Amino acid sequence: MAKHAISPTRSEDYPEWYQQVVRAGELAESSPVRGCMVIKPHGFALWEQMQGILDGMFKATGHRNAYFPLFIPLSYLEQEAKHVEGFAKECAVVTHHRLELNAEGRLIPTGKLEEPLVVRPTSETIIGAMYAKWIQSWRDLPVLINQWANVVRWEMRPRVFLRTAEFLWQEGHTAHATEAEAVEETLRMLDIYATFAERDLAMPVWKGPKPASERFPGAVDTYSIEAMMQDGKALQAGTSHFLGQNFARAQQISFADAEGGESFCWTTSWGVSTRLIGGLIMTHADDDGLVLPPRVAPEQIVLLPIFRSDDDRAAVMACCESLKAKLEDCRWRNEPLRVRIDARDIRGGDKVWQHIKQGVPLRVEIGPRDLAAGAVSLTRRDASPKDRQSLPLETFVAEAANLLEDVQQQLLSRAVAFREAHSACLNSQAEIHEAFADTGTIGFAHVHVADDPAVAAALDPLKVTVRCTPMDWEDEPGTCLFTGQKVARRSVIARSY
Amino acid sequence: MAKHAISPTRSEDYPEWYQQVVRAGELAESSPVRGCMVIKPHGFALWEQMQGILDGMFKATGHRNAYFPLFIPLSYLEQEAKHVEGFAKECAVVTHHRLELNAEGRLIPTGKLEEPLVVRPTSETIIGAMYAKWIQSWRDLPVLINQWANVVRWEMRPRVFLRTAEFLWQEGHTAHATEAEAVEETLRMLDIYATFAERDLAMPVWKGPKPASERFPGAVDTYSIEAMMQDGKALQAGTSHFLGQNFARAQQISFADAEGGESFCWTTSWGVSTRLIGGLIMTHADDDGLVLPPRVAPEQIVLLPIFRSDDDRAAVMACCESLKAKLEDCRWRNEPLRVRIDARDIRGGDKVWQHIKQGVPLRVEIGPRDLAAGAVSLTRRDASPKDRQSLPLETFVAEAANLLEDVQQQLLSRAVAFREAHSACLNSQAEIHEAFADTGTIGFAHVHVADDPAVAAALDPLKVTVRCTPMDWEDEPGTCLFTGQKVARRSVIARSY
Repeated sequence: MAKHAISPTRSEDYPEWYQQVVRAGELAESSPVRGCMVIKPHGFALWEQMQGILDGMFKATGHRNAYFPLFIPLSYLEQEAKHVEGFAKECAVVTHHRLELNAEGRLIPTGKLEEPLVVRPTSETIIGAMYAKWIQSWRDLPVLINQWANVVRWEMRPRVFLRTAEFLWQEGHTAHATEAEAVEETLRMLDIYATFAERDLAMPVWKGPKPASERFPGAVDTYSIEAMMQDGKALQAGTSHFLGQNFARAQQISFADAEGGESFCWTTSWGVSTRLIGGLIMTHADDDGLVLPPRVAPEQIVLLPIFRSDDDRAAVMACCESLKAKLEDCRWRNEPLRVRIDARDIRGGDKVWQHIKQGVPLRVEIGPRDLAAGAVSLTRRDASPKDRQSLPLETFVAEAANLLEDVQQQLLSRAVAFREAHSACLNSQAEIHEAFADTGTIGFAHVHVADDPAVAAALDPLKVTVRCTPMDWEDEPGTCLFTGQKVARRSVIARSY
Repeated sequence: MAKHAISPTRSEDYPEWYQQVVRAGELAESSPVRGCMVIKPHGFALWEQMQGILDGMFKATGHRNAYFPLFIPLSYLEQEAKHVEGFAKECAVVTHHRLELNAEGRLIPTGKLEEPLVVRPTSETIIGAMYAKWIQSWRDLPVLINQWANVVRWEMRPRVFLRTAEFLWQEGHTAHATEAEAVEETLRMLDIYATFAERDLAMPVWKGPKPASERFPGAVDTYSIEAMMQDGKALQAGTSHFLGQNFARAQQISFADAEGGESFCWTTSWGVSTRLIGGLIMTHADDDGLVLPPRVAPEQIVLLPIFRSDDDRAAVMACCESLKAKLEDCRWRNEPLRVRIDARDIRGGDKVWQHIKQGVPLRVEIGPRDLAAGAVSLTRRDASPKDRQSLPLETFVAEAANLLEDVQQQLLSRAVAFREAHSACLNSQAEIHEAFADTGTIGFAHVHVADDPAVAAALDPLKVTVRCTPMDWEDEPGTCLFTGQKVARRSVIARSY
């Protein structure tokens, strides 16, 4: 049996495998603060790549970034009735604003606040309060603002990247003059998330509306992108909410229209978070650790010089430096390649395995023999560590961008094939029960279900939920398997994170 | 008397002028949460420019970004004795982790935490706790990590950008094997801040060590950069701390050295914040509003099409689009120019004044007459709004980068000249008393003072402090005007923000 860098393997213990991949990949670890993670440099560099691409897509569609307060007065959360019900659960509450040192050298909270402050779990209410001030007339619309921020939702069962008390995210908040424009915006951002997931994360997703039971508190419609993890479970990887006039009415966000009347705005909000990193891991990582899609890999190519003598060292390092410069002159998807030379003085095997576990797409070894032959030894992270090929150096330079594109496409097709292999159309309650009775026989079931609480109730014992009703699927009229209502197309049901 | 866009003017009421510049420039405003500001899109875009440059400088010197928890357990703050004394004052304290809705629809904090959590005022203690785990051997050193984050220090008298309860900043935290390396790092980062301030913000600064009374709580040495605002006051615009082994000892951050012994690390921390935006404003803004140095201006050039008829509109807009493309192909300081066409349908005068108040470095008006002449009408923000010049379009394209460089240099030399004009060498207590007795006669006094609490005590009635002892100044041995001790060179004393 082959030995693997990650123990346990996926088939031995999937949840523990995930934790070990995160650890071995040096992405993050838990902190002394319950439920809060530390994002380590390699994990943060990955997040920076993702941020950079998304930020560019937001700006290209007319959005601007801004920053709103971390704290929300309790009374603001109370304004929108459904919102408060949905979020009135697990929040960090600031009640004091001062510390005093007592005689024993211990710090004691003092300076009690008149009104407690909640550390934002999401910012609709505080941002809405500002929009109510900023928006006066139709000329002020649309308002298209995004915020990159930390948010806190106290979690009883934290899990790194997937569910942590504090996490990083972006939250877009927009206000529009008409319902049609707000719906268009909601779907535009959903499309951006889906494009980003598939094109950049190589993570195929189904996008569509969620049932009422799964809506964001206070939203009229919630749309999500849903990805399949390697254990068959669904991960909600991003959401876009059409808020109708609910928040605008609660917060008095109104405008004078061109005819002189006063109307409430139509608002949206949409977000993705560091949870995407969890999704990336569980889509691509294998029993040797992380596998990063080149598009978001902080280092796309690592050059590993090999030498014993000082003479060799000089020649090999010179070759690496020159190769790095040549590669950085190449462009892939309009950007220079990201290349690192790892000349650290540690055992070659340890070094190679570190890059495997960190998921670097292409590893290139260069020793005196390669130098003499004018060649490099290339290994792709999406292939076996033993699948090494020798390439003329100039060929490698000429092909590097294509190789990255090929790894990227390979990861996407694998993930699509995996999803295909673990999805099925089911047409009766019995089939659903059978499919989800044992673990692992099915990931996504495509079924006809109505948007009805009875469906959620019927699926609950199976620990299954309706994830979304994919908009890209063909219409296929049918009858809800649980309520008998007519529905226009199938939905995805699955277990989920 | 000339009319100005900002009322009151600087000479009429400087503090209120500052608030009005921030408002008219649409940079930020206060929020419903006491002491917390909202950074509006234009202000945030400015911060993004500053972040981008600094982040590049940090990475070029081997630092990597990471992210640590927002919350710090109370007991962590208690670990370093001087640190806790210095920071045990105004912090936001989280005491509960749940909200419950009572019968009246009000939210009530429940779920009391066993140990209260402090919203980070700075992160030495929580980051140190992680470093103690990560660092085992000399091979793990140095650790060079930076974090971009929000921090909270409850402020009784908040002032937008300068002193707010929540602000954005970066905090670098490094650990080293030797004292010499840590001191070198401390000074390297101080240099980076000084370079950034002068080269990019066109804000001249004095850099040097602060007296013991002004040190960061727990530091061995604190160095700062100090800039002069237009009211003559000093603004501490960045700090770099050599922490010695104080935090390492308190937190057990130790390593096995190459000889097998166990030593405590030598650590540093350094930071700049959104306060820099306040400094930028008070260095360059005038009675018409913001004046942005081109290097950090989100928009360096705004093109203002002028037309009455639809025919004119088509021709003028085509010219603007083509000009924008040409300008974006130019490079200034290795980056493409940032150009916006403002074709909004609002009164031309209002539009021009909005860009003046937002500080855009170059305004270019293009109307049918310019078009016919193949020319553009150029106005520089660092000149009078009436100083308009007509330039052949191609000349403008060829000169655009030079014009930006010229504005940048002009702002720097103006600021240097202002500082020069408001600084003086003083050589007696009497001169100091006279200089600071009235407001406005002097900004910075260069004086011989010892690093002694008696100096702070003597200056306190004048509301003056020792800002720093500039390292770039020539040695000029003298005698402390207050204690008679011998000192090697002069220090800067001033009133300050």
